[in-house]
Amino acid sequence: MAELRREPITRMWVVITTDHPKGPSDYLPFKPPYRPQDSEGPCPFCPGNEGMTPKETFLLGREGGGWSVRVIPNKFPFFHIEGGFDRRPEGMYDVMEAIGAHEIVVESSDHKLNLAVMEPQHIEKILFAYRERLIDLERDRRFQQFLILKNYPGVFNRHPHSHIMAMPAIPRRIDEEIWGTLDYYRRKERCIFCDIIKEEILAKKRVILETVHFLIFSPFASRFPFEAWIIPKVHSPDFHHIHEEEMGDLSVAIQSLFMRFYKLLSDPPYSLAFHTSPIQDQSHRPEYHWHIEARLRIGLREGFEWGTGFFVNPTPPEDAAAYLREVG
Amino acid sequence: MAELRREPITRMWVVITTDHPKGPSDYLPFKPPYRPQDSEGPCPFCPGNEGMTPKETFLLGREGGGWSVRVIPNKFPFFHIEGGFDRRPEGMYDVMEAIGAHEIVVESSDHKLNLAVMEPQHIEKILFAYRERLIDLERDRRFQQFLILKNYPGVFNRHPHSHIMAMPAIPRRIDEEIWGTLDYYRRKERCIFCDIIKEEILAKKRVILETVHFLIFSPFASRFPFEAWIIPKVHSPDFHHIHEEEMGDLSVAIQSLFMRFYKLLSDPPYSLAFHTSPIQDQSHRPEYHWHIEARLRIGLREGFEWGTGFFVNPTPPEDAAAYLREVG
Repeated sequence: MAELRREPITRMWVVITTDHPKGPSDYLPFKPPYRPQDSEGPCPFCPGNEGMTPKETFLLGREGGGWSVRVIPNKFPFFHIEGGFDRRPEGMYDVMEAIGAHEIVVESSDHKLNLAVMEPQHIEKILFAYRERLIDLERDRRFQQFLILKNYPGVFNRHPHSHIMAMPAIPRRIDEEIWGTLDYYRRKERCIFCDIIKEEILAKKRVILETVHFLIFSPFASRFPFEAWIIPKVHSPDFHHIHEEEMGDLSVAIQSLFMRFYKLLSDPPYSLAFHTSPIQDQSHRPEYHWHIEARLRIGLREGFEWGTGFFVNPTPPEDAAAYLREVG
Repeated sequence: MAELRREPITRMWVVITTDHPKGPSDYLPFKPPYRPQDSEGPCPFCPGNEGMTPKETFLLGREGGGWSVRVIPNKFPFFHIEGGFDRRPEGMYDVMEAIGAHEIVVESSDHKLNLAVMEPQHIEKILFAYRERLIDLERDRRFQQFLILKNYPGVFNRHPHSHIMAMPAIPRRIDEEIWGTLDYYRRKERCIFCDIIKEEILAKKRVILETVHFLIFSPFASRFPFEAWIIPKVHSPDFHHIHEEEMGDLSVAIQSLFMRFYKLLSDPPYSLAFHTSPIQDQSHRPEYHWHIEARLRIGLREGFEWGTGFFVNPTPPEDAAAYLREVG
């Protein structure tokens, strides 16, 4: 179990583990991050080992038997499903229970598959699983925000998987984007994301790929080398309201982007996150514009960024987009 | 040279290198971060090799010859000293020159020294060098914000050193703290940091150490395992207005904290940052309360934190403070 504590100065929520807290010995010896080893023993995400995980919340079968995509509750969740919406003071501070959902999407039965070499038709199945789970989780009125997140390679297991989370509070980064979106809307009566799409299509130099329904580009103020966003060209606040036709197009866009990363940077480590509007009537924002943000985990200047909130990017987005266009 | 670009949605400034941009081959092969190797050849920060660096901006000599602390301009600065305060539009976006100062404080002539085993008297000399450089840099009216930052071990060189930066814009994290400080002041007519100090001294359980002038504690919503703040007990917005007597006390506090980390976690990697009020009349905030934030670079859940702005901390601050109190 865990609780959410509000940092009193900046008012940012932090998840604090309270039931199995880690002491000093749990951090020793230091392991270099981003170089996960497959843990010893059988992989709980591989076919035949389904008994090692909780029962699935969603399954896509495969012709000839078995499954192609499987969604399961996370055994070690950041947010737990049990409990009420308990907010309380603690001295001058604010606390709430870390309720929510945290599921794992096992993206393939193949232990070694990777977005860069998946068939777009298979990526479409993963997107379909995301959408179906979000539509189901939306009915729980305690949740305010969805997050779909993928780390490659996975931190504890290299079997291709991603995370679906439903959270009881809006995380800082989404909150900042919403604040900026509403502020821009008040001044211009236009969506800032829609304006960025028009600006980028006109300027061309940061565009990586344009499909029927999506634009893939390097943002003007990219925080990370080779940062890339995938955004629907028509305004839409919610990923989980995506149409079938857009889903096919998006799976081609995703495969193409990650194939470019793979070729250009020799199978680099990356993270990707879906940013989508908060849910529930009181926090849903029709002005927001959902999109996917992808970053490579290379060239981090972690101390400086932590100390300042300033990001330093030694690869201008115009260069990044040119490299990624040409390698396609 | 570099420029600052404003991310249009969240309005965060990002430093983009424009003159020697890095291409894909500069990131290959991937090296695990936080495990720097000493580069081959002589160390430019060691005595006898002063000719390998720019001329110092500040030097503290030592009895019997040589120097004990030396401050030099960084050969590879994030911010450059030349140029005017040039702000301009680029399409719908905002850009300014990344003017500023970026100096390196070589903390000792000993290549292998470390805060945990330094004499407090030597740490006081480093603090003195910080203060003198900030007092000098404050006269440049183009600068709005100071940052003092240390990464241990250093990313490119293990010789003990820290960074002093003067920047033309207020970085996101300081800006958020100031916003929160002013918001609290409007509601309560009190400094939120002063209130936190009182709350923590009363609650005791997150206190690591209290000295005459400083409190060292694990913050209630610690974002990182064993996060620790060092804060002056009497309200003061600016680190560089610190008195001699406080400086002696602070050097004891710093040595004690880093000795505890050293013992408890076997010489862990860490970062520390001084948070101090913006300078110049238009941005200086007397309501702000300067402090030092320290984090260990262990147990990072980097993808999740990037994706959400949510931090997950598996070591509650009450546990962290207890471990650090007891190891002292």
